[in-house]
Amino acid sequence: MLKKVTIFGVGLIGGSFALALKQAAAVSVVTGVGRRAQTVQRALELGIIDEASTDIASAVKDADLILIATPVAQTAALLAAIQPHLQPGTVITDAGSTKTDVVVAARAALGNKIHQFVPGHPIAGREQNGPDAALADLYVSKKVVLTALPENAVDTVERVAKAWQQCGAVVHHLSAEEHDAVFAAVSHLPHLLAYALVNDIATKPHAARLFQYAASGFRDFTRIAGSSPEMWRDISLANKHAVVAELDSYTAQLAQLRTLLVNEDGPAIEAVFSRAQKARLDWIAAIEAAEQRPSFEQGGD
Amino acid sequence: MLKKVTIFGVGLIGGSFALALKQAAAVSVVTGVGRRAQTVQRALELGIIDEASTDIASAVKDADLILIATPVAQTAALLAAIQPHLQPGTVITDAGSTKTDVVVAARAALGNKIHQFVPGHPIAGREQNGPDAALADLYVSKKVVLTALPENAVDTVERVAKAWQQCGAVVHHLSAEEHDAVFAAVSHLPHLLAYALVNDIATKPHAARLFQYAASGFRDFTRIAGSSPEMWRDISLANKHAVVAELDSYTAQLAQLRTLLVNEDGPAIEAVFSRAQKARLDWIAAIEAAEQRPSFEQGGD
Repeated sequence: MLKKVTIFGVGLIGGSFALALKQAAAVSVVTGVGRRAQTVQRALELGIIDEASTDIASAVKDADLILIATPVAQTAALLAAIQPHLQPGTVITDAGSTKTDVVVAARAALGNKIHQFVPGHPIAGREQNGPDAALADLYVSKKVVLTALPENAVDTVERVAKAWQQCGAVVHHLSAEEHDAVFAAVSHLPHLLAYALVNDIATKPHAARLFQYAASGFRDFTRIAGSSPEMWRDISLANKHAVVAELDSYTAQLAQLRTLLVNEDGPAIEAVFSRAQKARLDWIAAIEAAEQRPSFEQGGD
Repeated sequence: MLKKVTIFGVGLIGGSFALALKQAAAVSVVTGVGRRAQTVQRALELGIIDEASTDIASAVKDADLILIATPVAQTAALLAAIQPHLQPGTVITDAGSTKTDVVVAARAALGNKIHQFVPGHPIAGREQNGPDAALADLYVSKKVVLTALPENAVDTVERVAKAWQQCGAVVHHLSAEEHDAVFAAVSHLPHLLAYALVNDIATKPHAARLFQYAASGFRDFTRIAGSSPEMWRDISLANKHAVVAELDSYTAQLAQLRTLLVNEDGPAIEAVFSRAQKARLDWIAAIEAAEQRPSFEQGGD
């Protein structure tokens, strides 16, 4: 049982973490810290947090676990502000979508307390944000990637892993570099591609006519272009090297398809489309098989 | 009231057209023609068609309206086979996803009967195919684009438009070239991009790890990569010029974003993402407003 958990940023991600720990009876007191008094007040009203704090020293005092779930641009400054008050018995983790940049920032901010920081990334979300969007079951059967540091003690990593497992999540372990390369390919690049397509259409002179005939395929393809521009600007920049590498690989793929089209090479085009269709069908089948496993079997990965 | 409608291809598209006309009491007899006896038999069992035919001459005899709803690769050969039996009182339309190629093929196949052919494209579909997937309400509030020919009489176009309206569809009129340019941008290119992304990931040495961490954003972005490779090969080739033009425009867009990333130009990246997000939100809002209009107000566009 965690006696005290302190959460910076009590919106969807931080709020859901709090609700899940409470539902699992895994925490006694949740303290919330937020930049906007209104948000923190709302989190209190919703029972997400037990106490609100505007003072960092008292907020982190005697905490077993601190989760930083603010927009990633604030992480470095927050870690620096927490550092002087960080007690030896406290473990910190975060929920940022990129990890190598967070590790660099954490080393600079925490200095010789870096061993108390375990970088993390819960792979879960909703279209909505803020405390009202928080759900106790947001993380059930979802993956959480921890990118433990060489300085972390096994017990330190385990405290973070256990908290996420108590939220129903499946914990995975990657290095920060592996994490960033993987998510550049399967998340960051697709977001960039979707934004680029909508922007390309929106800036054409006959944009209105084009949007008029866009249908359900376009709707699904571009859903992620409805995401927060600020958040994805920060992610793209934070993971610049891996995103550019994936973009270059993808652009080469498009150039190849263009050549096949110009040459009217039907069999080769069909081969590309068929391989993609099969890979996607296999992937969906694997997801659906995994989702049918009861969640209590999924912990401890 | 149409006395006789003949449908070539009694799967999702042709079958739904038949069911919708029957539900609207807009047709007396529907004759079905298909390459596979089993499919035609199933359409008979499901009440989609009233009679099956394997003989083109008798199938098209005295038909008021013929719909060609087979895979597009068969359209040219079918039109040529129908031509000798085509009576002056019959109007033909099709349901292909590309139109300039169909017009070229129809002119070659139908000769001086070309004025009886009105090219069409219903913007509706489902993941499933075949007669069992056919729905009487598939076309309700969906767009059907007719790309009428200069040779068509007003009455001829009107017969096709009215049939689609009786299916609940909203009929739009574009030239074949306009149609193909529009759908290259909002449908054909997105399909190609989704196939290319899944193929790019599937052919990497660490593909399994990448797919393991792909989540809901990737799922939606790549849903259209689950579509039929044969169908999309044919569409890509049939609309090659417009697709290549859109692909080039998109590739230029990606090159620009790459430069912004390499230069770490946060404000410019955010501007692109914001413009895309706004355009998509506006588009979704327009769709939702349109969907709330009762369908009987939507005819006659």
